[in-house]
Amino acid sequence: MAIYKEKISVEESKTSKIEQVDFSKLDFGRVFTDHMFVCDYKSGKWQTPKITPYQAMTIEPSARVFHYGQAVFEGMKAYKTDEGRVFLFRPKQNFERINKSAERMAIPAFPENYFFEGLETLLNLDNDWIMPGIGNSLYIRPFVIATEPAISASPANTYRFMILCSPAQSYYNTPVRVLVAEQYSRSANGGVGAAKAAGNYAAQFYPTSLAQKEGFQQIIWTDADTHSFMEEAGTMNVFFRVNDTLLTAPVSDRILDGITRKSIIQLAEDLGITCEVRQVKVEEIKNAARDGSLKEIFGAGTAAVISEISAFQHKDELFEIADIDSDNSYAKLFKKTLMNIQYNISEDVHGWRYEVKPK
Amino acid sequence: MAIYKEKISVEESKTSKIEQVDFSKLDFGRVFTDHMFVCDYKSGKWQTPKITPYQAMTIEPSARVFHYGQAVFEGMKAYKTDEGRVFLFRPKQNFERINKSAERMAIPAFPENYFFEGLETLLNLDNDWIMPGIGNSLYIRPFVIATEPAISASPANTYRFMILCSPAQSYYNTPVRVLVAEQYSRSANGGVGAAKAAGNYAAQFYPTSLAQKEGFQQIIWTDADTHSFMEEAGTMNVFFRVNDTLLTAPVSDRILDGITRKSIIQLAEDLGITCEVRQVKVEEIKNAARDGSLKEIFGAGTAAVISEISAFQHKDELFEIADIDSDNSYAKLFKKTLMNIQYNISEDVHGWRYEVKPK
Ligand SMILES: Cc1ncc(COP(=O)(O)O)c(C=O)c1O
Ligand SMILES: Cc1ncc(COP(=O)(O)O)c(C=O)c1O
Repeated sequence: MAIYKEKISVEESKTSKIEQVDFSKLDFGRVFTDHMFVCDYKSGKWQTPKITPYQAMTIEPSARVFHYGQAVFEGMKAYKTDEGRVFLFRPKQNFERINKSAERMAIPAFPENYFFEGLETLLNLDNDWIMPGIGNSLYIRPFVIATEPAISASPANTYRFMILCSPAQSYYNTPVRVLVAEQYSRSANGGVGAAKAAGNYAAQFYPTSLAQKEGFQQIIWTDADTHSFMEEAGTMNVFFRVNDTLLTAPVSDRILDGITRKSIIQLAEDLGITCEVRQVKVEEIKNAARDGSLKEIFGAGTAAVISEISAFQHKDELFEIADIDSDNSYAKLFKKTLMNIQYNISEDVHGWRYEVKPK
Repeated sequence: MAIYKEKISVEESKTSKIEQVDFSKLDFGRVFTDHMFVCDYKSGKWQTPKITPYQAMTIEPSARVFHYGQAVFEGMKAYKTDEGRVFLFRPKQNFERINKSAERMAIPAFPENYFFEGLETLLNLDNDWIMPGIGNSLYIRPFVIATEPAISASPANTYRFMILCSPAQSYYNTPVRVLVAEQYSRSANGGVGAAKAAGNYAAQFYPTSLAQKEGFQQIIWTDADTHSFMEEAGTMNVFFRVNDTLLTAPVSDRILDGITRKSIIQLAEDLGITCEVRQVKVEEIKNAARDGSLKEIFGAGTAAVISEISAFQHKDELFEIADIDSDNSYAKLFKKTLMNIQYNISEDVHGWRYEVKPK
């Protein structure tokens, strides 16, 4: 995709903050690169995008985003090879998803050329912030907020689309312990769970903090109606390995259509691993844990790639999952296979890599 | 409640914008008074509140509110009598509710004295913006946003509590036509529907815009599981009058515990009108519409006080509600009874009025 420089105004930062950053001790999402991408929507259209130094912004306290949560976001990563080549992973999926989320939240769609030109220009400017080495990456956060200063409860007429970048190491390093939801829920049928809508995430903070007090890092959400089917975690889709078969819930209007998830489903097919995409009963997984056929549970998402789950609790019953030999672990296999594609180590048979070329 | 001036720092606006405002042509929520209340939370506590001129603010684009919708709000009104006395209506309910909403969204509770001192100081400063005359009011918008500049998906460590004020005429003037939800939903069991959480509102924009295209101004939400019970509208609880009995849904974790709603339930008791608080089947209301026993439907909320509903549609079937004689209308009776209390015209047997005295 060509970059039409004349379309994006670029104001370069005079100094870089990069020297102040200890890349070996990164706390997720706290450090931002030198630049950011900004594009405003007004008078019915997206205006000329610009790239500016990363900085605080001025906004009316009456902006609708503060009152009604009219906001959506994406999460993606840039990976650098040892030779300094920079790759994205299936970025078109993120682009399409942010517009799908936007539609559900009554936010106007963002143009594809602005998205890719903006992103590539930004990544070229902040190229030094992308550390090579497997596990290192630059986390990319596109998002849209309703900026109109008017507090009537209706869609705004003005918006801001932005992209921030934050250097990242791997998100969860150690296996996590999860609680299976029995009372709280993440989303409703006919609700906004399938959108990366801002409010979906804050809604999980309180139940998650309760789970954390009991020693669980995350919640596996179940269907709000009956709490009897496993759905997804806060920022990850979830896979269950029963004997040698993988199980994962189908996407719906309650579940985010994760890019890592759909990549794993494809890789499973490539690797000859059976993956059943179907409703997964909590009882089924508990029984599999009891009879020893439950071999692994793992989360799948951009931030953590694959996050192994070592235990789950449901209705006060705790199930520990026995350690699996590294060579036999699906979680490790998928993580390695995915990262080898992301870091340009293995062949890219599905055309998932997207190189960001220097200009 | 005493005002401890030393606790709130006040920076008065040098000029007033009030001369530029046409109070006879107010669009809801677009014009703000000269001042606003601001209080920041950091290092584990709410800092000294301040009142400043209403102005744009500076905030990091990485503030959590933009990404995860960690925000809650309230809506209340100040009413002025012809003699210039200023009243609030059950403000303690709003105070308690914002803290209840905050808890569900993992936001720290706001201190009661800050809330009332801030509000009263603000209303005294902007007293001229409260127009006397029944129907006129000053809409008051307390809200809290997560300001911490860090995009990890967890509760923030810093927040801002603010109060904005906006002069208002009555919200909906004419009867509204509503669509009964069949596919989309507002909230889940175990979700955040009972909280005034920002994201609940943007989630309704898209389905509401679809309804509007079909000629309906609002949606009456139904339970997400079965879509067979009437719950509430976007910013109003809903009452059905079948013969001479009022019906309204019980509050739950899906439905906002409206202050207008609970006041009407009390007033119905005072007036000897039977009000049944119970699940209201959509079919029951359709049958009542068919056999002529459905006399009225109305919404109840701070913004519109009472909003008459003249028609509803469900599964492509449209039900028009016959006009009711003004003298026999419960909607008009409750509206008048409520407003007479709000504007200090009638006796306040329940102690709902709260006078804001000049300092
Ligand atoms: C709710 C939810 N589920 C799943 C995922 C995983 O999706 P992806 O693999 O596209 O990052 C995410 C994170 O993006 C998410 O927010
Ligand atoms: C979802 C919802 N329901 C009902 C109401 C009515 O509540 P109240 O009467 O307290 O204004 C509101 C508005 O505040 C609301 O946002």
